[in-house]
Amino acid sequence: MAEPSKQRLRFWLQLLKATKHVENELRERMRVELGTTLPRFDVMAMLAKSGNGLKMSKLSTELMVSNGNVTGIVDRLENENLVERVAIKGDRRATLVRLTTKGKTDFSCMAKAHERWVSELFAGVDESEMDGARYFLAQIRELT
Amino acid sequence: MAEPSKQRLRFWLQLLKATKHVENELRERMRVELGTTLPRFDVMAMLAKSGNGLKMSKLSTELMVSNGNVTGIVDRLENENLVERVAIKGDRRATLVRLTTKGKTDFSCMAKAHERWVSELFAGVDESEMDGARYFLAQIRELT
Repeated sequence: MAEPSKQRLRFWLQLLKATKHVENELRERMRVELGTTLPRFDVMAMLAKSGNGLKMSKLSTELMVSNGNVTGIVDRLENENLVERVAIKGDRRATLVRLTTKGKTDFSCMAKAHERWVSELFAGVDESEMDGARYFLAQIRELT
Repeated sequence: MAEPSKQRLRFWLQLLKATKHVENELRERMRVELGTTLPRFDVMAMLAKSGNGLKMSKLSTELMVSNGNVTGIVDRLENENLVERVAIKGDRRATLVRLTTKGKTDFSCMAKAHERWVSELFAGVDESEMDGARYFLAQIRELT
């Protein structure tokens, strides 16, 4: 039996590998089939989920990427008329970012493709095991 | 019962969240406690594992980051005398990258800290569940 710390390290590396494997597959399909990137998709997904838009600071924290990166992504999305920056009443220094109508339509297509790919990628994975693993993954986030 | 595709999507998002959660925790500790970054650590870990060093192209593929990034990381590590570039006999266009003695010593300290952090982060996770999940994670990589 390996030391607990070695066992945990091995487990973490396996968790990381499996996740990166799927992430790379999705990144590649995003690039080839939709001509877009995962960070762009993530930003649009967060904005879609928010409904009325998000402050830049909030967007940055939730995505856990650097503010500079998010700013660059939002700039490009704005140039393509997929998001818009709106002033917040009573807060001159902050702006709200939200999807435009075009952004919403585009994102809805992207999200459908994304869901289809994920479904394909996990098609062979046993459902009951997936349920067990979900409980387990929630545990990791709570404990760490 | 949700549609299978929605269930799989939810599972994937949970897997991604758990992994990012741990990754961010490790990134933060790398930064605060060792003054280094995860990509640097990953490059050094791959070189340490290789024993005799790796070609740049191989390093890039295995890390699954862009060649440009790896080159920048290796440049900086070389400046700090942690890695060295060595000519490959009979192959003028390729160079081998390997850890210097200083790089090996430094990495061994970093690896110990990394293992300790991972062990702390997963300390509360049930061992038998971890074993089950490892089998499951291997399955994901094979099927996808």
